[in-house]
Amino acid sequence: MTLEGKSLIGQQTVAGSGEPLHAVDPSSGERLAPAYPGVDNSQIERACALAAEAFDGYRETSLEARAAFLERIADEIEGLGDALIERGMAESGLPQARLEGERGRTCGQLRLFASEVRRGEWLDVRIDPALPERAPMPRVDLRQRHIALGPVAVFGASNFPLAFSVAGGDTASALAAGCPVVVKAHPAHPGTSELVGRAIQAAVAHCQLPEGVFSLLFGAGNELGQALVKDERIKAVGFTGSRRGGQALAAIAQARPEPIPVYAEMSSINPVFLMPAALGERGQAIAEGFVGSLNMGAGQFCTNPGLLLGLAGAPLDAFISAAGQALEQSAAQTMLTPGIHAAYQQSVETLAGHPKVREVARGQAGDGQHQCQPGLYVTEAADLLADEALQAEVFGAAALVVACADVSEMQAVAEALEGQLTATLQMDDADLDAARRLLPTLERRAGRILVNGWPTGVEVCHAMVHGGPYPATTDARTTSVGAAAIQRFLRPVCYQNLPQGLLPEALHDDNPYAVSRLMDGKREA
Amino acid sequence: MTLEGKSLIGQQTVAGSGEPLHAVDPSSGERLAPAYPGVDNSQIERACALAAEAFDGYRETSLEARAAFLERIADEIEGLGDALIERGMAESGLPQARLEGERGRTCGQLRLFASEVRRGEWLDVRIDPALPERAPMPRVDLRQRHIALGPVAVFGASNFPLAFSVAGGDTASALAAGCPVVVKAHPAHPGTSELVGRAIQAAVAHCQLPEGVFSLLFGAGNELGQALVKDERIKAVGFTGSRRGGQALAAIAQARPEPIPVYAEMSSINPVFLMPAALGERGQAIAEGFVGSLNMGAGQFCTNPGLLLGLAGAPLDAFISAAGQALEQSAAQTMLTPGIHAAYQQSVETLAGHPKVREVARGQAGDGQHQCQPGLYVTEAADLLADEALQAEVFGAAALVVACADVSEMQAVAEALEGQLTATLQMDDADLDAARRLLPTLERRAGRILVNGWPTGVEVCHAMVHGGPYPATTDARTTSVGAAAIQRFLRPVCYQNLPQGLLPEALHDDNPYAVSRLMDGKREA
Repeated sequence: MTLEGKSLIGQQTVAGSGEPLHAVDPSSGERLAPAYPGVDNSQIERACALAAEAFDGYRETSLEARAAFLERIADEIEGLGDALIERGMAESGLPQARLEGERGRTCGQLRLFASEVRRGEWLDVRIDPALPERAPMPRVDLRQRHIALGPVAVFGASNFPLAFSVAGGDTASALAAGCPVVVKAHPAHPGTSELVGRAIQAAVAHCQLPEGVFSLLFGAGNELGQALVKDERIKAVGFTGSRRGGQALAAIAQARPEPIPVYAEMSSINPVFLMPAALGERGQAIAEGFVGSLNMGAGQFCTNPGLLLGLAGAPLDAFISAAGQALEQSAAQTMLTPGIHAAYQQSVETLAGHPKVREVARGQAGDGQHQCQPGLYVTEAADLLADEALQAEVFGAAALVVACADVSEMQAVAEALEGQLTATLQMDDADLDAARRLLPTLERRAGRILVNGWPTGVEVCHAMVHGGPYPATTDARTTSVGAAAIQRFLRPVCYQNLPQGLLPEALHDDNPYAVSRLMDGKREA
Repeated sequence: MTLEGKSLIGQQTVAGSGEPLHAVDPSSGERLAPAYPGVDNSQIERACALAAEAFDGYRETSLEARAAFLERIADEIEGLGDALIERGMAESGLPQARLEGERGRTCGQLRLFASEVRRGEWLDVRIDPALPERAPMPRVDLRQRHIALGPVAVFGASNFPLAFSVAGGDTASALAAGCPVVVKAHPAHPGTSELVGRAIQAAVAHCQLPEGVFSLLFGAGNELGQALVKDERIKAVGFTGSRRGGQALAAIAQARPEPIPVYAEMSSINPVFLMPAALGERGQAIAEGFVGSLNMGAGQFCTNPGLLLGLAGAPLDAFISAAGQALEQSAAQTMLTPGIHAAYQQSVETLAGHPKVREVARGQAGDGQHQCQPGLYVTEAADLLADEALQAEVFGAAALVVACADVSEMQAVAEALEGQLTATLQMDDADLDAARRLLPTLERRAGRILVNGWPTGVEVCHAMVHGGPYPATTDARTTSVGAAAIQRFLRPVCYQNLPQGLLPEALHDDNPYAVSRLMDGKREA
């Protein structure tokens, strides 16, 4: 499949007329063909208009038809074969195995949402039958289901060019909910985006869905994204990226005549609590696990462990020393873009230059372009508490170890942290009481709490929460990974006393979709 | 019980030092004792601090303990006896039967949430067991539950001094979710608020809960409400009132360093679609039903039917005439406050003075103070489409009939409407096809769709949606009435690989609360 450098608007392939963007191979700095000229306002309009036109029809597709569509997208992506992986490697600097794994995750995610659609619990069917004899007032028949919010704008993310991009979790969950999707391609991987976009476009055609169900737009600056979020036909936004970017989109969404929800997953330093018994017993092993997690994907994970808290003393010193040694042996890795690399360099310099921070170790410098040379730093709890800047996320492999006087100070630091995607406890049985005291704080501060694991690696399953209090995300009530992500794009509608002939099929007495229902307050499985 | 004119902060009864507010009997204009001096900033601080202190303990109460607390509140309210009804009548101008009914609704609502708490589905327990043998990567044990958001600020509403006030739906659902509540009393019914607040305070003591679970604050101006929404310990807001008020609170909440959700139920004109066959067959009966709904509570319902759409012609003329006659016989009713009455007068004058609006009828003028003299007006679809001002809510008994050329124009008006709490179809079998064409529009525009009923009267049940797209509410994804209202105050937390000794009880293998769980993606009832 030859890349055309064009946007996809419904079933059309259209050439933009704006400023072109190019992918850059971060390992060489080389600009990759083709150019992707940005769309103009009329093209954005057209994509939104098609999405709005498609909405009523698409949201009423049968569960089976919608599930089959999601599965078809997965099949089409797999059908792209090696070309997708090769282009992804060239555009992201990520290795082949990682991208192959990410493709598997992306297709698995689409298939999980297909099974969620079929299961139908997302409809949240509730039926309160009429009680004509009730005194003093009879009750009329009341039924509830969830329907899709409307067209959704999805912003591709840089760090997972497949799993959080054109056909990533936001798109998959929005389509599963019954929302048409307009994707703004991330400028760092336009070719990968085009390939995946064409796979979705083909699936739309194959499944004979309204063409506006999916569009993919390219644009070099911020104008495209802003225009999408402002468009009155867009009813929700999915975004993974920087805090500044997410906050800007949320502000635009709130300033609309009709404000809309923005699901922005923004920033997190993912604190790891090195509990005393565990640190004393197996500090060396924890240090090795930590460095492995820190270096994953050159540290360019939302769940990268950027902060470690331990009790000052010999075990923490030994841990720091072991982690430093492991880090020094870590090879440099190409970062996703020259811009991300430059920001990483600057963040690390700022951290290293902080008067209360000491550099423990750096990894190998590497001889390629735009490579991440991981860094490990230490400070003290009082210093972290005194300066919010020490909580700033460094996007890339860098971590700060915080020496605390005791578990109470550890807890004070936890209380002072901003909202996080994850919080991790490295603990043994003897740490259980201290962990129990910490737990309520961690629940208030994070979306996911781990014991004796590492936060990188986000399982796509039913119980996952990839979310958390602000500023980890703009909406702590949701997750952007896992089956529950579908709930972001739904709203309840109640039907009072509708004749069966007018009532949506899912609410019919005979339960044609065989979904779990709440019947007069009792669960029917 | 003697009214003290004091705020309730935890178990304390505290005298404010700010500007005092007084209830006014709207039927006489008479100021009622006692004075309620406003709280100062340190008292607001104290209530929020107590709420934050109470949070971790309260949110982990057992399902049974929390349910019993809600039931105890209902018992305590009932224990207030006639004093509550008498004070409510004096402060609101509402009749005895209405307030007795509202008390029943309020206590029934608390008991419904008690049963919801016990049922435990709000926990949304999901368990994805470990798959140690899975290739290429094993899966670790992942579990999810929902926890409470944190302390909630609740704003009492004027129009339901019991059911949407101190112990109303927002308070009941927030307490059910595990959130401490700080209520800002509505200045129109301070005595009613004090009585109910003391009932909750007594229930907190009886159930030996942390005192910060509930506080009730009085304040004359907007400062108290603003301070509450700004306080960093408050994590969500429940509000029912004007659009301007809701928008102001939402803006404050968004401008916080940590933005929080505001559930504001604001404005709705609740369109009624008079379908041709039904209008032709039974226009007279529909007119009578309509006027009954319009006059309910002097029209001071969020779900008051303020807009009717029908096809121009003899049946619509006959309907207008019949409705006008019924309206002319309608007695005047005392409105809730002098301010609400003044605003009603002005809104009705503006409507009547609109060049494209014709007045059909007014009800009886009445001879009491601050009485609503209902009004009926007509205009044409093209005029409504040309001027947004004709969509403005009149709070009180006033409705606008819109003559449409055909069902397509009816649909065009529906598309042009702002978000609504309800949309009603008056229809017969012969209207089914036209209703089917309208339905997708109504679903996009409203939270509840009714057939052959009237939107006033919101059943408290499992399937109810009292919500809808902006500006009916600030969050279309939720309901403020009915069992699902609890979901507004929850967020998911995922627990990865936690030992059973650290895991919250609800997530234990043996399911101690016997709740419905999602086990590896399958529903266990």
